[in-house]
Amino acid sequence: MRDVAVIGIGLTKFGELWDKSFRQLITEAGSKAILDSGIEGKNIDAMYIGSMSSGRFIGQEHVGALVADASGFSHRHIPSTRVEGACASGSLAVREGFLSIASGMNDVVVVGGIEKMNDVAGATATETLAMAADQEWEAFFGATFPGLYAMIAMRHMYEHGTTKKQLAQVAVKNHKNGSLNPYAQYRQEITVEHVMNASPVAYPLGLFDCSPVTDGAASIVLCAADKAKKYTDKPVKIIGSGQASDTLALHARRDICTLDSTVYAAKMAYKKANITPKQIDVAEVHDCFTIAEICAIEDLGFVKKGEGGKAIENKITTLDGSLPVNTSGGLKSKGHPVGATGVAQIVEITKQLRGEADKRQVKNARIGLAHNVGGSGATCVVHILEAV
Amino acid sequence: MRDVAVIGIGLTKFGELWDKSFRQLITEAGSKAILDSGIEGKNIDAMYIGSMSSGRFIGQEHVGALVADASGFSHRHIPSTRVEGACASGSLAVREGFLSIASGMNDVVVVGGIEKMNDVAGATATETLAMAADQEWEAFFGATFPGLYAMIAMRHMYEHGTTKKQLAQVAVKNHKNGSLNPYAQYRQEITVEHVMNASPVAYPLGLFDCSPVTDGAASIVLCAADKAKKYTDKPVKIIGSGQASDTLALHARRDICTLDSTVYAAKMAYKKANITPKQIDVAEVHDCFTIAEICAIEDLGFVKKGEGGKAIENKITTLDGSLPVNTSGGLKSKGHPVGATGVAQIVEITKQLRGEADKRQVKNARIGLAHNVGGSGATCVVHILEAV
Repeated sequence: MRDVAVIGIGLTKFGELWDKSFRQLITEAGSKAILDSGIEGKNIDAMYIGSMSSGRFIGQEHVGALVADASGFSHRHIPSTRVEGACASGSLAVREGFLSIASGMNDVVVVGGIEKMNDVAGATATETLAMAADQEWEAFFGATFPGLYAMIAMRHMYEHGTTKKQLAQVAVKNHKNGSLNPYAQYRQEITVEHVMNASPVAYPLGLFDCSPVTDGAASIVLCAADKAKKYTDKPVKIIGSGQASDTLALHARRDICTLDSTVYAAKMAYKKANITPKQIDVAEVHDCFTIAEICAIEDLGFVKKGEGGKAIENKITTLDGSLPVNTSGGLKSKGHPVGATGVAQIVEITKQLRGEADKRQVKNARIGLAHNVGGSGATCVVHILEAV
Repeated sequence: MRDVAVIGIGLTKFGELWDKSFRQLITEAGSKAILDSGIEGKNIDAMYIGSMSSGRFIGQEHVGALVADASGFSHRHIPSTRVEGACASGSLAVREGFLSIASGMNDVVVVGGIEKMNDVAGATATETLAMAADQEWEAFFGATFPGLYAMIAMRHMYEHGTTKKQLAQVAVKNHKNGSLNPYAQYRQEITVEHVMNASPVAYPLGLFDCSPVTDGAASIVLCAADKAKKYTDKPVKIIGSGQASDTLALHARRDICTLDSTVYAAKMAYKKANITPKQIDVAEVHDCFTIAEICAIEDLGFVKKGEGGKAIENKITTLDGSLPVNTSGGLKSKGHPVGATGVAQIVEITKQLRGEADKRQVKNARIGLAHNVGGSGATCVVHILEAV
């Protein structure tokens, strides 16, 4: 397999972007990534687009071709493929782009992730998101993701003594990081009291335990590592990529407090990168709900199972802790345009490894990890990146 | 790039399958392909699923993970990824599976394609299919695919003298082939008079010029070519794979009678296979409407631009012609469950190259081609296969 590097990154502002269309968002992110990479349009061999439910959200399928067209590349007829795996759609697009270069088919690939969730045709965003759950076992009976993650949280509290206050501390940390990120949807800091006293959504999760409904797009340019220096003097290598699946329905898991898809995807990525979790300097993890970040840092091997709550309490994962997590603000504060999230995580890790993360820069960050989950954990993708 | 072979194939019956669910269809096709291949579940490294609009058709996204789960593979946590490119979703899944093996990441990959179109939640099938067209330039103004392809047909008649009778002859040929295919939706033969006198849909296209709304699934097992003999004594090698894009909206093309995405995808596939169109012994092409088959045989280089109608009239593409096209019955008679179509084409070509096509067997077929189109041609994928 050929080595692959990230050579360009681009993001739109995340938020309720009522005045920007799907086409505007993805071309804004893509053109920023292309400009940042040093490539020209003629260098692009292929495109991959992650989007969870463009069909339901905006009434448009076939968005791979749409994005190539809207970007002005239709006259070059380059292949453009949409990939979907619920909220992990973005990182699946990254992985397919990575594989297409590793195979030798392509040298330069532009990857995009996008979701336009606020201006919704037909259903509410929560109804559409519930289509990432198991229809026959969950969605038909009214289950939505806040409810499913609330069950995980309740069990985690029962099994491991995790507290509502520890959940709140995840949100407080991520809002603090998000306050330093000009692209984040929510830039205000919040307190533990704000989170604890917020309107309940699905006990024990309140409003501030949940990631928001977000419009936004992210893009990266991938390049065969041996050709990256032609375009940029700051390539970041993808040294590990792992993907794993699990049951679509939560109830069928052996332990609902563990996302086995994370465990397996991480194992695959660590093995390929030939590193241990201890060597990670900075991580973006999938905090769609506060409990999800606690499970993630356990399942990724950063702390032992059951000790995630304590780790948050002990500030291990804050910006100046021993392993900063979600320096971008995470899904919680930066926002969660589902198809864009996995690509946006790679954008943040690349910024950190290039030393371009400004006020949220982690000192001496050399190896970073991105962790993206679909649904309640039926899909997980983990990428490990290293500055070269 | 490592060589890749098809080592197993499986199909469900195509048709209005009101009594079979999405899960039943895809697992039926998948288990047939796995049984046919000689592999066991433990050999599978990854899965790719092509589906155009599971979100709109059945209210379920995240169908990559769903299929892995429904197939009983969730405990093995193998990666499973959904790919979408409108009616080319199936062949995009084939291509991503192919690339993941070519890269060295996987040795054995199961590819599935599926659409459940009759039992539709919310919209009609035609409305959902129109989401493969350009929403802002076409769908919002009421354009649906019969209308778009009717415009192509009108122009083709004007530019090249193609006749309504020649269009009809495509349908007659494909129904004849379909009558020999036990998996086809429509097994009755029809006459030119049937087609010419059928209810108009969008002039010049009548009811029998259009492919039907179909439920169905198809599956293939791909394997690194150097390991294929471990499992089967009849591997079929993928010697070429090409993919190309074009404008999403029809009006923006340089010539609506030519699908440039086909021209470019075919060029890429022929080059990789190191062959010319003359060397193709059998082809499955994307005849969503009769005019589409005429364009396809021109754009693939089988005949010159404008001579497709004459080629049909001269019976070049019949079962005993010099280049049999759509021996399976094509989308027209076999049926067109959109996400399954691209995979089902590979199933038919593999049958032909193995000599297992029974009454529709093409004599001495050694090299076959599959051509799958998304929308009115914004996406095209071409694969070339060879018996080894």
